[in-house]
Amino acid sequence: MTGEITRADIERVYHTIRPYLRRTPVIQVDLGELNGHGTVTLKLEQLQCGGSFKARGAFTNLLLRDVPEAGVVAASGGNHGVATAYAAHRLGIPAKIFVPTVSAPAKIERIRQLGADLVVGGDRYADAYEAAQEWAATSGALSVHAFDQRETLLGQGTLALELAEQADFDTVLVPVGGGGLIGGIASYFAGTPAVIGVEPDGAPTLARARAAGKPVDAPAGSIAADALAPRRIGELVFPITQSYVADVVLVNDDAIRQAQRALWQAVLIAAEPAGAVGVAALLAGAYKPATDERVAVVISGANMSPGQLEA
Amino acid sequence: MTGEITRADIERVYHTIRPYLRRTPVIQVDLGELNGHGTVTLKLEQLQCGGSFKARGAFTNLLLRDVPEAGVVAASGGNHGVATAYAAHRLGIPAKIFVPTVSAPAKIERIRQLGADLVVGGDRYADAYEAAQEWAATSGALSVHAFDQRETLLGQGTLALELAEQADFDTVLVPVGGGGLIGGIASYFAGTPAVIGVEPDGAPTLARARAAGKPVDAPAGSIAADALAPRRIGELVFPITQSYVADVVLVNDDAIRQAQRALWQAVLIAAEPAGAVGVAALLAGAYKPATDERVAVVISGANMSPGQLEA
Repeated sequence: MTGEITRADIERVYHTIRPYLRRTPVIQVDLGELNGHGTVTLKLEQLQCGGSFKARGAFTNLLLRDVPEAGVVAASGGNHGVATAYAAHRLGIPAKIFVPTVSAPAKIERIRQLGADLVVGGDRYADAYEAAQEWAATSGALSVHAFDQRETLLGQGTLALELAEQADFDTVLVPVGGGGLIGGIASYFAGTPAVIGVEPDGAPTLARARAAGKPVDAPAGSIAADALAPRRIGELVFPITQSYVADVVLVNDDAIRQAQRALWQAVLIAAEPAGAVGVAALLAGAYKPATDERVAVVISGANMSPGQLEA
Repeated sequence: MTGEITRADIERVYHTIRPYLRRTPVIQVDLGELNGHGTVTLKLEQLQCGGSFKARGAFTNLLLRDVPEAGVVAASGGNHGVATAYAAHRLGIPAKIFVPTVSAPAKIERIRQLGADLVVGGDRYADAYEAAQEWAATSGALSVHAFDQRETLLGQGTLALELAEQADFDTVLVPVGGGGLIGGIASYFAGTPAVIGVEPDGAPTLARARAAGKPVDAPAGSIAADALAPRRIGELVFPITQSYVADVVLVNDDAIRQAQRALWQAVLIAAEPAGAVGVAALLAGAYKPATDERVAVVISGANMSPGQLEA
């Protein structure tokens, strides 16, 4: 049962990776100040090492798997590349990172600063993935998958463990691209609290997979394409979401941009487009909580040019 | 004894203002990632309503004092103006705000958005203060002082109450301008943990007052001048700092700018110059903790143009 991930598995992983990570805080915010309704608990995971939740999975891979002398290789829309470069740098392991040309300049720059061997090429995440697989085959380097890898899911699941300790809530909204984050979180909660996926309507990997009953190709557009637009949801991830993800909602690019601006204007939080989709779902009404429903939202990352936040 | 402020006074005020404020979180960060040493607990008060700690004092004034029909008036380098406008807007009270021309455009814009009657004029905080006093005298509006007012100190002291509940530490570094924040925090802790003031070397109000043994005029320069540069430390504030502030250290503008960039690069935290002085003191060595000394730092605000954070 390689696909099964239990809460106990995630707890064990947490003890292993905790010394290398930040315990990111939560804040409760009145959405009235963002032109919404009700209050929400924000998990400020953009303050994680490497600027996104991806560091959790990266450290889990590098600490739990056997790393050959050739080091590690990762393909990434950007954040997983930053996280793998960060973890490799911290642990003294060589890293080669492949990113597509849509990656945010801020992400590319951070990967360079962390001393990784960086290759920028291809239009999409899928192109970078193919190049990374070739490199893994020829070099012998360990491939660290951005989402469809047991250790990656275990690591991302530790976010749920922290959140459960930090806040009481009925529902958590989680950004979805390949599904590593929601797969880990849904494994941990296993049904309660409810887990809701949020995707850009230009990159609906999980919505399309649910409609088809299996992972299928989806468009890879949206301003969040540098983080939420692999070609399809992960094979390991999908069955977990079928069991434990209550619903998936879509938001458009305007709603994402408005959520980014509202978070900055009202709370001085910087969030990249992918990091703001959960708040976008609430502000745009794509997800409508019931009266008295307590909602948490994961702000998943902030690797971006801060000038984007100018009104 | 109008100057005396006890922990019990601050606790009572906290219950009054809490419904209107955010409980801002803390995060523990390894300073090695910011090119420093050791770990530090950051109190993320830039996430407070209105983008700075000033909302605590503003609500305390508006909720505890008698507000006439003419409403309230405040002079401010910017953040106190935003906070007073915010609290007045929330409580349905008319507000007139005077700010000097050095105020950050982001602060001026926020005051306007909050519907306050805004007057921009004069070079320094002291000019805005004079204009506000005239307005108070002619209009009958209640003057809400940015620091030298008992209710303001009581409100800012509630930050210390939260921090004491959130983290264990031996020392806390606090930005100093007029001294409202450090006066409130020092009153709450009353000696333990140790409170250290941090000032820009271009606006050393507390350092000069300590040297003279009383509040005296100081230069009002520095890139943090829109938040930390009144002409002198408050009359109510100074005796509190003499009793309960262990030391004051100075940082220059380069160190402040480097701290801002390091906070953004390594932790994705946006901090305005005044909000970054505590981290600047650690990175530049202006404050050198002893081995094993546990240090907390208040990130006091982030009302700024985010484009400033571009590398």
